[in-house]
Amino acid sequence: MIRRLLIANRGEIAVRIIRACKELGIETVVVYSTADKESLAVQLADQAVCIGPAPAKDSYLNMGLIVQTACSTGCDAVHPGYGFLSENAKFARLVQECDMTFVGPNPKLIQMMGDKTQARKLMKEAGVPVVEGCEDALKSVENAKNMAESIGYPVIIKARLGGGGRGMRIVYKAEDLENAYTEARQEAKVCFENDEVYMERYVENPKHIEVQILGDHYGHVVHLFERDCSFQRKNQKIIEEAPCTALTRDNREKLLSQAVNAARSIGYDSAGTMEFLMDKQGNFYFMEMNTRIQVEHPVTEAITGVDLIKWQIKIASGQHLTLKQEDIQCHGHAMECRINAEDVAHDFAPSPGPVTFMHVPGGHGVRVDTAVYNGSIISPYYDSMIMKLIVSAGNRLECIKKMRASLEETIVSGVKTNIEFNYLTLYQKEFIEGSHDIGYAPILLKRLKENGQFI
Amino acid sequence: MIRRLLIANRGEIAVRIIRACKELGIETVVVYSTADKESLAVQLADQAVCIGPAPAKDSYLNMGLIVQTACSTGCDAVHPGYGFLSENAKFARLVQECDMTFVGPNPKLIQMMGDKTQARKLMKEAGVPVVEGCEDALKSVENAKNMAESIGYPVIIKARLGGGGRGMRIVYKAEDLENAYTEARQEAKVCFENDEVYMERYVENPKHIEVQILGDHYGHVVHLFERDCSFQRKNQKIIEEAPCTALTRDNREKLLSQAVNAARSIGYDSAGTMEFLMDKQGNFYFMEMNTRIQVEHPVTEAITGVDLIKWQIKIASGQHLTLKQEDIQCHGHAMECRINAEDVAHDFAPSPGPVTFMHVPGGHGVRVDTAVYNGSIISPYYDSMIMKLIVSAGNRLECIKKMRASLEETIVSGVKTNIEFNYLTLYQKEFIEGSHDIGYAPILLKRLKENGQFI
Repeated sequence: MIRRLLIANRGEIAVRIIRACKELGIETVVVYSTADKESLAVQLADQAVCIGPAPAKDSYLNMGLIVQTACSTGCDAVHPGYGFLSENAKFARLVQECDMTFVGPNPKLIQMMGDKTQARKLMKEAGVPVVEGCEDALKSVENAKNMAESIGYPVIIKARLGGGGRGMRIVYKAEDLENAYTEARQEAKVCFENDEVYMERYVENPKHIEVQILGDHYGHVVHLFERDCSFQRKNQKIIEEAPCTALTRDNREKLLSQAVNAARSIGYDSAGTMEFLMDKQGNFYFMEMNTRIQVEHPVTEAITGVDLIKWQIKIASGQHLTLKQEDIQCHGHAMECRINAEDVAHDFAPSPGPVTFMHVPGGHGVRVDTAVYNGSIISPYYDSMIMKLIVSAGNRLECIKKMRASLEETIVSGVKTNIEFNYLTLYQKEFIEGSHDIGYAPILLKRLKENGQFI
Repeated sequence: MIRRLLIANRGEIAVRIIRACKELGIETVVVYSTADKESLAVQLADQAVCIGPAPAKDSYLNMGLIVQTACSTGCDAVHPGYGFLSENAKFARLVQECDMTFVGPNPKLIQMMGDKTQARKLMKEAGVPVVEGCEDALKSVENAKNMAESIGYPVIIKARLGGGGRGMRIVYKAEDLENAYTEARQEAKVCFENDEVYMERYVENPKHIEVQILGDHYGHVVHLFERDCSFQRKNQKIIEEAPCTALTRDNREKLLSQAVNAARSIGYDSAGTMEFLMDKQGNFYFMEMNTRIQVEHPVTEAITGVDLIKWQIKIASGQHLTLKQEDIQCHGHAMECRINAEDVAHDFAPSPGPVTFMHVPGGHGVRVDTAVYNGSIISPYYDSMIMKLIVSAGNRLECIKKMRASLEETIVSGVKTNIEFNYLTLYQKEFIEGSHDIGYAPILLKRLKENGQFI
């Protein structure tokens, strides 16, 4: 078993990992940047080591220094959290080469799933529906044009080593293709240091549905049901929930069993998420696999009672995943709102600064994950998350009502927040029906602005 | 259905009731004393009405004014919370006479269970084991002496209209009986305005185990498993948990079915709790029934997922209790620590004052119920509760570990608290084994003091 674990992350996920480690009896070392020296994680961890200034490239992305710190503080494992180095196969290998446990899947799997064309191929072979598109990176504008003709417009051009919505271009007609192709390559080069792009048919306004997977080193793989993350803006999720009430029973069974089979076929051996798009006809298509824990994992924990981070750590340390599929039950409904320090009226611009007063909600079925406290400072250098507010209840409508009541109790002073935007969303017909797709949040914002909100 | 509900209480339970009402779509009116004018409940309720100064007899116990306030603010129901008027049959009747719904059982039941000798009789008739003792109030010292001889020492003398541990005397030998009898009568007179006392065999160092009951107006009664509240001091519970791991499976079944049968036999029609003592041999004896919601109800909510306050309100409004016994499952284990503003080193003396900084724990399986916020003031006029910290996990040991980690995160500055006492308890062999009885907390405190703690 792991004895001492280094957390190569910050914010609420660092706190979340510390909590899991405390319960598992594992000591924690957290690395931090000078901007985070007063952070909650630094205060809660057994040891904290400063590894440089903000921005991230000078600290949280400094692989060599992080691994060195882990070694010199006597750690036998590294947890990367989400973001930063969490899907960096090179980092995972470096950790393993230094005889430490990387809390995540086999680095080969990180690399395979990070290559989006390869991931498509593997999923297709595993019998998972993949949207029509090319098998390999596009070779030229001509190649792209021919491909688009054969797929049919609209198409989407994506970075081969991409993810998280960056380096993507949607093309509705042939005359826009060349520009889009060139721009996508340029953006891919900047974001991912590789300008290869590929093409898929563009699924318009789908639901974003993802399946939570846990697999161990011994071939045992289970799902923990699905999440609906369709309330998002510019590929940034805002409200996530579980289960997805828009799925028919048959479709859910198909989705979950295909996801488990695919994860098993690639030998997936950690916590991971398969993301799918579902069109209006109920067809779903594999989008990408995240080989790490996700921000929205608590909604799955709420409906199943399973502690995903604890399992992720136990699996990494070589333990058998003793959860049987039939033991994992879905109880009620859970929903998460991401409360961010941002100015909704100004295109959700980050609103960093000191939090002068904060009061979090509580009570039955209410969970708060945060690294912010009264008087702490939201840094301009990192994501603008203040807290994740997760509520669970017997069904989706009760869940929405509980979330409304919880948001009414939440007070964050000193910075602008998206609390009101979340709150108003919970009163919209489309959201209450659960029929909203990934195109809905921008439409709602426009409608609210027309009615005098957020201007 | 209830449209507008008056909350005749304060503190965390007032906030808890507001939350339930918000989810049920019921408007709330909270009454408050001048000492509570900045309280969280006052800020969260739809309307707040000041009904006088502290102490409670000039405000929270002013039945007439509270009922009048409910009428004048258009309420159609009154929730009494716990303490104050929650087990006052006269108050419940007054509410009903003014054509409002009392959120609690039929006033007749409050009265019946408030008379401890009558409650004993009723429970005995319903087949529930009751410890040997007298059927009626003691008539004289001679009567008391004869009774003690026939029961066998040690005996306990209790107030007939008592409860909550007040007006009780334990007698180990005959020569102490007269004094004890006289003192018990005097204390009963002061506390309950009635000097009648009765006698029972004294069960030494038992476990305190209680069964949560829900019944509706149509004869449907279910249990929601049991709670172990044996970690207590001077009859004040400190740590409560569910289920009780010291019960054998057979004993649990017997206890739960007898409690349900008894509640059904008296036509119990609300949320209520039957308290039992269990001796070292596993025999259990009815102690008393609380005809209200209890402080520790969240541990039951955590293991069952059932919202007790919402059901209590729905039942009071005439709805059928649609929960079937077989649908109520016990998942994992839950534990509550009462975090109080008190000075453990000085006999747990209240430590009122302003809370200059507060940080509450969070995360998976962690629930906080509190009415205290950064900068709020713990009043000297009421109980010294700061928050209820409730954690749940897969089993009791995981639960203890989670509670330790959560207490480590909890910061309350400005007042003295019992956080450290709770924390150290969670590392004691007897507590970890679950073998602790109601005599354990004082023994532990003595041991800790001998080791230099709390002096």
